[in-house]
Amino acid sequence: MAAMGEFDLIKRYFDRPELRPGPVMALGPGDDCALLDLPQNHQLAVTSDTFVCEVHFFADMAANQIAQRCLAASVSDLAAMGAVPAWFNLCLTLPNANPLWINDFSQGLAEQAQACSISLAGGDTTKGPLAISIHAMGWVPMGQAIIRSGAQINDVIMVSGSLGDSAAGLQIMQHQRDAQDLLSQRYWQPTPRIELGLWLRDKATSCLDISDGLVQDLGHIIAASGCGADLQLQSLPLSAALQAHVPLDQAHDYALNGGEDFELCFTLPAHQVAKALAYSQASGLPLTAIGRISSEPGCRVWDKNGALYQAPHGYQHF
Amino acid sequence: MAAMGEFDLIKRYFDRPELRPGPVMALGPGDDCALLDLPQNHQLAVTSDTFVCEVHFFADMAANQIAQRCLAASVSDLAAMGAVPAWFNLCLTLPNANPLWINDFSQGLAEQAQACSISLAGGDTTKGPLAISIHAMGWVPMGQAIIRSGAQINDVIMVSGSLGDSAAGLQIMQHQRDAQDLLSQRYWQPTPRIELGLWLRDKATSCLDISDGLVQDLGHIIAASGCGADLQLQSLPLSAALQAHVPLDQAHDYALNGGEDFELCFTLPAHQVAKALAYSQASGLPLTAIGRISSEPGCRVWDKNGALYQAPHGYQHF
Repeated sequence: MAAMGEFDLIKRYFDRPELRPGPVMALGPGDDCALLDLPQNHQLAVTSDTFVCEVHFFADMAANQIAQRCLAASVSDLAAMGAVPAWFNLCLTLPNANPLWINDFSQGLAEQAQACSISLAGGDTTKGPLAISIHAMGWVPMGQAIIRSGAQINDVIMVSGSLGDSAAGLQIMQHQRDAQDLLSQRYWQPTPRIELGLWLRDKATSCLDISDGLVQDLGHIIAASGCGADLQLQSLPLSAALQAHVPLDQAHDYALNGGEDFELCFTLPAHQVAKALAYSQASGLPLTAIGRISSEPGCRVWDKNGALYQAPHGYQHF
Repeated sequence: MAAMGEFDLIKRYFDRPELRPGPVMALGPGDDCALLDLPQNHQLAVTSDTFVCEVHFFADMAANQIAQRCLAASVSDLAAMGAVPAWFNLCLTLPNANPLWINDFSQGLAEQAQACSISLAGGDTTKGPLAISIHAMGWVPMGQAIIRSGAQINDVIMVSGSLGDSAAGLQIMQHQRDAQDLLSQRYWQPTPRIELGLWLRDKATSCLDISDGLVQDLGHIIAASGCGADLQLQSLPLSAALQAHVPLDQAHDYALNGGEDFELCFTLPAHQVAKALAYSQASGLPLTAIGRISSEPGCRVWDKNGALYQAPHGYQHF
């Protein structure tokens, strides 16, 4: 397809009101830049992620699911700062302009954009190996963003949702691309915890989203905050679906080291925990205390007998 | 190299003060998001571009030049809006973590960042086919951005610098990667016309940067503004280097249709032209009147005899 044909095709599938459910833009796609208005006394939160075919997803996976997942992963970074999603730019690199694929992709993108109230502000389409780069922008009241470096000794470490589902879902999908079970869905349709991020703004001392696995990501909080962490193995929130699917040891490994849960991990002063549990009950989103911040550097996991947890042979150690 | 090794390497080469010559950031790279403060009563200008190996550049070209060019091309979009460059996010997809290549890339990026006073705010590094996505952000006083849709009938069409050099430089480099002549330099080291963009804010009725060729890009202005354009062939600013390198017909073709000049094309009310020429003389940046906006839709090029210009056989028609 000629360059101009591609351009038209993409304009057709990406210049749609369904892709603009977020804040009004002073100037949307189509000029050299988009022009965006930030509310007074707010800061802009920006995050960029690239998703590469055969690395972050597979070519034969459904285009709408690829789009949903990429945008969700990007918005999850905004949620982890306590930011309100506002706009995103999409850089789409395509080996060819397949109208069916682009239509499906655009459909999935629109669904996720609507779920997150985020508007497509612009971007770029290029010819090349399939890859997606998303630049997501949101806003947060001045000084209220939740960063990684504020965790205090004795803070309670909490996580949202359940852990490890996405890693198990990826395993399933590697064998069956169109799997529809709960674990596969958790892989494809992560839910950015936007509302939770907003609620945590004036309460959490630190927060991030779990994209590389709980232990590795919590490592960023304790490194930035100059402290350590003690986790209780039996406190890890494991879904019924995960426990039914794999032995407990493997479920623990997925929960500790499996990536792309896109749940929030945050630290709260002890006196805020009751409030968090009440919020959890009211919102229906599980929030679980899984450990404590300690002065001892490093991250330790303790089993129910009070012994240091040793991951079974053959699983990835951390 | 292990994933963690790549991460460290990239942190080492991209977490450098040389890459932060722009406005101070409330929170720079390393958290889920960067946090950025916009001056009051300003709008954010955002642009995203992807540069794919073997499409926008070649794998055996120098990494520092690749970086310089990609960042310049992105900042050029900010310049075309009259925006002050502020921050950029870099998504770098690499097939492997070659320290020499990354060091060179980072060096070229830092040089261009300093030339444009723009700071690296964050981004992403992934494994995959070599590609670069840049999300550039700048600011502009509320309502003062120069957009494409304001051209008025009888406005004078002007361009900065000389046209066609970059297209000729690319031809040279396709045969000799390390060519150092002026045309090749114009391909590798485009100069975003930041100062000119700022100066044009309260004067130009429309503006864009020439990335796809003058005729095609001017087509965006006349389409958005609901008008047409008449260009004078003999007015096109051709550099001495270009005229020495190719026959005049081909120089005209490069100037009209060759892409990636990254010069600004803008429209001015006739009474502003003298001011523009005085600015040109004072700044040393050539500004040339090349035609007029007309009520007749479409873009026409006229030769010195007042006849409609017919591109010679074998050149790309428009």
